[in-house]
Amino acid sequence: MHIQVNPVGSMRLLSHLEIQLLQKQTDETLYELYKNCSLAVLNAGSNTDNAEEIFDKYSNFNIEVIKRERGIKIALSNPPEDAFVDGKIIKGIKEHLSAVLRDIIYTNFRYVNVNSPKSISPSDKNTHIVFDILRNAKAIKPETDANLITCWGGHSINPNEYKYTKQVGYELGLRKFNICTGCGPGAMKGPMKGANIGHAKQRISSGRYIGLTEPSIIAAEPPNPIVNELVIMPDIEKRLEGFVRLSHGIIIFPGGPGTAEELLYILGILLHPSNAQQKLPIILTGPKESKQYFEDIDSFIGETLGRQAQALYQIIIDDPKAVAQSLKQSLTDVMAYRCKTGDGFHFNWSLHIDDEFQQPFEPSHQNMANLAIEQALPVQTLAANLRCAFSGIVAGNVKAEGVKSIRENGPFAISGQKEIMHRVDKLLQSFVKQQRMKLPGSTYTPCYKIVGE
Amino acid sequence: MHIQVNPVGSMRLLSHLEIQLLQKQTDETLYELYKNCSLAVLNAGSNTDNAEEIFDKYSNFNIEVIKRERGIKIALSNPPEDAFVDGKIIKGIKEHLSAVLRDIIYTNFRYVNVNSPKSISPSDKNTHIVFDILRNAKAIKPETDANLITCWGGHSINPNEYKYTKQVGYELGLRKFNICTGCGPGAMKGPMKGANIGHAKQRISSGRYIGLTEPSIIAAEPPNPIVNELVIMPDIEKRLEGFVRLSHGIIIFPGGPGTAEELLYILGILLHPSNAQQKLPIILTGPKESKQYFEDIDSFIGETLGRQAQALYQIIIDDPKAVAQSLKQSLTDVMAYRCKTGDGFHFNWSLHIDDEFQQPFEPSHQNMANLAIEQALPVQTLAANLRCAFSGIVAGNVKAEGVKSIRENGPFAISGQKEIMHRVDKLLQSFVKQQRMKLPGSTYTPCYKIVGE
Amino acid sequence: MHIQVNPVGSMRLLSHLEIQLLQKQTDETLYELYKNCSLAVLNAGSNTDNAEEIFDKYSNFNIEVIKRERGIKIALSNPPEDAFVDGKIIKGIKEHLSAVLRDIIYTNFRYVNVNSPKSISPSDKNTHIVFDILRNAKAIKPETDANLITCWGGHSINPNEYKYTKQVGYELGLRKFNICTGCGPGAMKGPMKGANIGHAKQRISSGRYIGLTEPSIIAAEPPNPIVNELVIMPDIEKRLEGFVRLSHGIIIFPGGPGTAEELLYILGILLHPSNAQQKLPIILTGPKESKQYFEDIDSFIGETLGRQAQALYQIIIDDPKAVAQSLKQSLTDVMAYRCKTGDGFHFNWSLHIDDEFQQPFEPSHQNMANLAIEQALPVQTLAANLRCAFSGIVAGNVKAEGVKSIRENGPFAISGQKEIMHRVDKLLQSFVKQQRMKLPGSTYTPCYKIVGE
Amino acid sequence: MHIQVNPVGSMRLLSHLEIQLLQKQTDETLYELYKNCSLAVLNAGSNTDNAEEIFDKYSNFNIEVIKRERGIKIALSNPPEDAFVDGKIIKGIKEHLSAVLRDIIYTNFRYVNVNSPKSISPSDKNTHIVFDILRNAKAIKPETDANLITCWGGHSINPNEYKYTKQVGYELGLRKFNICTGCGPGAMKGPMKGANIGHAKQRISSGRYIGLTEPSIIAAEPPNPIVNELVIMPDIEKRLEGFVRLSHGIIIFPGGPGTAEELLYILGILLHPSNAQQKLPIILTGPKESKQYFEDIDSFIGETLGRQAQALYQIIIDDPKAVAQSLKQSLTDVMAYRCKTGDGFHFNWSLHIDDEFQQPFEPSHQNMANLAIEQALPVQTLAANLRCAFSGIVAGNVKAEGVKSIRENGPFAISGQKEIMHRVDKLLQSFVKQQRMKLPGSTYTPCYKIVGE
Repeated sequence: MHIQVNPVGSMRLLSHLEIQLLQKQTDETLYELYKNCSLAVLNAGSNTDNAEEIFDKYSNFNIEVIKRERGIKIALSNPPEDAFVDGKIIKGIKEHLSAVLRDIIYTNFRYVNVNSPKSISPSDKNTHIVFDILRNAKAIKPETDANLITCWGGHSINPNEYKYTKQVGYELGLRKFNICTGCGPGAMKGPMKGANIGHAKQRISSGRYIGLTEPSIIAAEPPNPIVNELVIMPDIEKRLEGFVRLSHGIIIFPGGPGTAEELLYILGILLHPSNAQQKLPIILTGPKESKQYFEDIDSFIGETLGRQAQALYQIIIDDPKAVAQSLKQSLTDVMAYRCKTGDGFHFNWSLHIDDEFQQPFEPSHQNMANLAIEQALPVQTLAANLRCAFSGIVAGNVKAEGVKSIRENGPFAISGQKEIMHRVDKLLQSFVKQQRMKLPGSTYTPCYKIVGE
Repeated sequence: MHIQVNPVGSMRLLSHLEIQLLQKQTDETLYELYKNCSLAVLNAGSNTDNAEEIFDKYSNFNIEVIKRERGIKIALSNPPEDAFVDGKIIKGIKEHLSAVLRDIIYTNFRYVNVNSPKSISPSDKNTHIVFDILRNAKAIKPETDANLITCWGGHSINPNEYKYTKQVGYELGLRKFNICTGCGPGAMKGPMKGANIGHAKQRISSGRYIGLTEPSIIAAEPPNPIVNELVIMPDIEKRLEGFVRLSHGIIIFPGGPGTAEELLYILGILLHPSNAQQKLPIILTGPKESKQYFEDIDSFIGETLGRQAQALYQIIIDDPKAVAQSLKQSLTDVMAYRCKTGDGFHFNWSLHIDDEFQQPFEPSHQNMANLAIEQALPVQTLAANLRCAFSGIVAGNVKAEGVKSIRENGPFAISGQKEIMHRVDKLLQSFVKQQRMKLPGSTYTPCYKIVGE
Repeated sequence: MHIQVNPVGSMRLLSHLEIQLLQKQTDETLYELYKNCSLAVLNAGSNTDNAEEIFDKYSNFNIEVIKRERGIKIALSNPPEDAFVDGKIIKGIKEHLSAVLRDIIYTNFRYVNVNSPKSISPSDKNTHIVFDILRNAKAIKPETDANLITCWGGHSINPNEYKYTKQVGYELGLRKFNICTGCGPGAMKGPMKGANIGHAKQRISSGRYIGLTEPSIIAAEPPNPIVNELVIMPDIEKRLEGFVRLSHGIIIFPGGPGTAEELLYILGILLHPSNAQQKLPIILTGPKESKQYFEDIDSFIGETLGRQAQALYQIIIDDPKAVAQSLKQSLTDVMAYRCKTGDGFHFNWSLHIDDEFQQPFEPSHQNMANLAIEQALPVQTLAANLRCAFSGIVAGNVKAEGVKSIRENGPFAISGQKEIMHRVDKLLQSFVKQQRMKLPGSTYTPCYKIVGE
Repeated sequence: MHIQVNPVGSMRLLSHLEIQLLQKQTDETLYELYKNCSLAVLNAGSNTDNAEEIFDKYSNFNIEVIKRERGIKIALSNPPEDAFVDGKIIKGIKEHLSAVLRDIIYTNFRYVNVNSPKSISPSDKNTHIVFDILRNAKAIKPETDANLITCWGGHSINPNEYKYTKQVGYELGLRKFNICTGCGPGAMKGPMKGANIGHAKQRISSGRYIGLTEPSIIAAEPPNPIVNELVIMPDIEKRLEGFVRLSHGIIIFPGGPGTAEELLYILGILLHPSNAQQKLPIILTGPKESKQYFEDIDSFIGETLGRQAQALYQIIIDDPKAVAQSLKQSLTDVMAYRCKTGDGFHFNWSLHIDDEFQQPFEPSHQNMANLAIEQALPVQTLAANLRCAFSGIVAGNVKAEGVKSIRENGPFAISGQKEIMHRVDKLLQSFVKQQRMKLPGSTYTPCYKIVGE
């Protein structure tokens, strides 16, 4: 008799690391403990109290934790028959099986194997941390529909752009999409307000307005109270990884260096050969007045990362409905791909993220000066380094530590291949001119200077 | 402006260790991080994006996490005014404050300060683990009424006794009590079945039937499917600590050496001078045929631990309604005491449990032989050692490792002061005679021999 | 554009009478009112406030209420486009459409057309009343699984039979069946107690224990508190109709004249040619000691109503699991039939019930004496009249009015064709002998006498 | 033994008519039926099945349905003791008591006493109908906080006014108020949109946006999809009665003749001597550009209905926060008054509404011409007649029948005392000038002419 059981409750959501730990080959002692406790709960109603006898009687019993696209399955071989009614497991016993899983994993991860097995790669561990923090915050909801759109864009945008982000949000809300942003003002608030009205009309009272932030940006871009799920990731890199693994699509509204950082991050990742088959729709969009802005961005990408990078996104000008409809359509492909690869519906495990995108970049003057920016680099490394450059500028503009460091040591010097640096300079100039660097009300003093090769 | 805020959701439930970590004096860096992030979310709607300016503007802002009987409170001094409507905090912002608390604590406990601060005592750490495992299993429910009765008693009892445990459970259920047991058959199942009917009549669909077990006993005493909250504690000592910290009252039905172990455990703890003021009603009860049984137990306690130990419990024979009514009345005292001492309503933090009751006792032949059992010991130490003796006998009777060890090495030799050993022997003999050692169906071969002084 | 919409909430559940009233051909004025209000709510966001213009613009708009197996559908032709997002109706507008339906029907049924259209047959009106009272009591739950088993049987049964009814209930509960009974003690309580434990193991906290009673029997057979849905039907005939239209299967345990009445009722109905295709499993069951009892009943049915009546039920002795499994299997046929005929899943509209089974029978001495009981009658009429005879005996045994009438006027005289009367007498004698007439504790004095032809 | 029980579920909400029907003095037979069935369910666990005996045994049992501010109470004298645990009724039995109440009332109101007792006044019957329709629509929620604000105002207002209604709604939403309007565009939609954002920030997912409409206005003023509770009352007078009995406060934004009708309606009612003690705050409010508008309205009221009418409302210009805070404060008085008078928290039973405000006014040319409008009338009658005049103009402007009638027969002629008619004319002229008669986009042709005395 072979049977598979879906665990209930919180056990539907395990990280790959946790599953691995329960495999026989990883840790035999722990596996035996897990197997024996599982057999015990399946053996309810037994009429012996001799544990040895029980294990002997069911010596051909076996259990295995299997990874599946939507959470995990517990595979049982030759379990005691009394746990089943007409071949289906009694729900109470299914809950007990899940409790065994929960308590064994918890106790071991927390108090026994605090340092996970050595064979785990740093990248896998990092992803486990991102997953674990989001899971603890209940931001991964395996029982809900997969429909999360991340909206990136500036905290400092003009009223016209702001109104447009609300309209896009409204059309997304009408189509039952949930919204995730960096949770400050501007393009991070507009889509939530719009979606809120769309959800009200669709009678969705459980609409999600997720804000992902991190300690160094939260003060400059405080979460609007509409954000009903706020998560503070430990650093910018984990925050970015959180965005892309949680999302089923990404919208990029007009913005400044932070938005450029985000675009370079996602392009850099998707350009990695391991991600060639990934499905993740990216739409750059704004009102008709933003047309030029997106043409500039598009040229910059084309000239630095090339055509293959440009092929990863779509630009839609002044058509909120088309944006929402396009994402709705792409969602089918996204989910089909996840089914095919056995990936999670609410956390994209299969996306490969390289170390260079996971390691925290500290924007010191030294680090900024050392960034290698040249055409000769592999394209994803160039993207990673450009991402760091823009990240540093955000810090110098609005983060407390960065602002202080600039005040004390003068602007960052960023150098690199002349041609690219020229492009960077041009883009940053346009951000200054369009007041995208900081909220209006003060004159912007650049926190960087471009140093030619 | 000074204001206190109740955090929402999972943040209502922190261990004393976690609260301590967020105090300024424990870890200043962590405290600053927590304070700044909290200020940031209170500052929603601000119209500057300069983090430094914000911290300057609210330099007299302060935040403190305060322990309270029902969870914690967050005390704010001089928070930004826009977070409030007519003096009350906007709910969305209250949620954000809770999210900050959640993410800072989680990230730090799990990935930064994995080894908790050194100043923590092993006993405090042990209690934190018990709490943490129960909390992770959602067995501590701060939003529910405090009404949990632990029922101890034999897995192997006669039909008459079994029926009686159902009647007691029924009367408890009618009075809205929830039930916690060791989750095997017999006295661990009866009260749950009875309470289930009582709950049905009172339309309580959220009745709790908690089973606390541990890996070495679960096979011999598998959880009945009525158990709707199963928790597997890592060892017998944490399981016992779980029982007593979770409960608002304890019932002891007839049983064998396991039940004696439990009685000695709770008496040993309550006899400690630090617990002199504790309120925890203990009722020994059974049908009229069990009268002699309880008289034997009572004499045994009187002759080993003395009158002060006898004063800690009440014996009620053949009156299920009186048992339930007595516990209902005691509940008022229990809760009054917790309010007065600021203790938790669903987890008894203030009960002192000595190291000798927390350290796992491994029932090897050596350890059993070495147990000091003599009148000269402090009464709680004598209780602790007697508890270990009975614990070993349970292992030798039904636990897989114990049974194997007895088969290989012969029975445990237990020695001690003659007078006491005589009492112990007499009690164990009566258990054998009454078939309380093992489920009927086999002849009982003792796993121990009493060796006089 | 043609589109069908499922109404939400309480509007999923309309009686056939109510649907009929909204058809154009039944009442054109009311239909126009309904159509215009529906168009108005579909026209949200319109930018004219001229009602005439609106009706002109959508002159080809049409609406129709269509009967479907699971509630109703609203069919729209050419509705305003703005009510839809990508071809699907906005949920808020769907709710408004349902509100129009609700308010128009309610106001008209209650305050305008209090006497329903004259073309309605008394039988249809009667069924509407049964439905309406059950719906008002929320006993018809269109969103739940179809799985209700009615259990009939005596209020006065022996402990062995009682235990058996609990076991059957347990097996039904494990298979997620809900229970409906007449809500007194004995066979009406046992299945609920058993199912309660089965439901607890399957973690069904919404288990239904429906009690259908009526004012004249409620005192003698008061509902046990486990009954969590109590409905008091106005008379015994509506109560019986309630049982059979609500159920997906019927179990008959041992009982007295009331149980015989119920068996005759359901057989009489199913014997009607219009019900030849109906699927409604009936199982007579009891412990092995009840074997003779059921053989007696079976002979009685065979000799009075014939083989075709015997073919309508199955007798299972001493096998609770087989009873539950058989019903589980039959459920598939029952639901397949309802799908095929477009019948309701939770209220069997298509079952034909003749006037002679719906008209309240008042058990006066006169009426009892006048009952025609002879082989020459159509079989369902004979069943109907026998049903009345047993109904009268129940009244004479336990109902307040009946008992008083017997005390004042002596026993009922029941006459009829000799052969049948002999069978009836024999059956009643056995009920007396087996103490099925009244609860033990008193000597039974018959409330009837059989008068030969 | 005397005890009072709160019924559960839908039985918390009975109309005064329904309660009256269950009093012994109103209908003794029905009362006996109710009493006996109630005794039966209290007698669960009885061990006799003789109904007569039961009624004899409890001959001093009594039951009474008592009106209370929050629903009703059931008062029991000398009930069977087994229905209670430690003096408190078993919840299951409480539910059964409520089921008896429900089924007896329902069956009698619907199928037996369809025409309510003759002693009932038409006004009481009318109020029962308003209550009954709202209750059926679940718009009366006894378990929720009392906090419903009705917002009246024009469907055709300027963008500035519209924005203001949103701001007021936002401040109301932040203070947890729910919103009720006539459910069209303009001032009926703005407050809901604003409150929706306020509710989101306060995490209120059960915010109520009630729209009360009636068949003749619904097409011209279709409900916005944000309305999440739509109720279609049978006529304008019941709709108005619904507004005032449901509300805990009223806001009047700028509007046209419909808004004037509403203001005259509420003032006319409150001017009745029976309502002298009533607490119902009324606030007239708009942006600073609307100052003149409200001064005009205020003069009109002063000159027609006098100072006492002016004392019934407060005018607040350009201060959304003050509006919400004032209503919050008044709420305390409103609820204190209801507690004192034993009135319902969610339906104002104690407000007296005269026949002249309840009788449907049909705006035919004849009826409009016949309206008596003169100073000599009692002030509430003058208010009633002026209300009718404005009601007729709304019909002539936008209702299908009215528009048709004007097209065929020319404008309504309205006559009355010269001085008043002059005021009316002036007010209507200003409405025309400010485009408050109809949505912009067409030239307004008046549907009335003022005919001097």
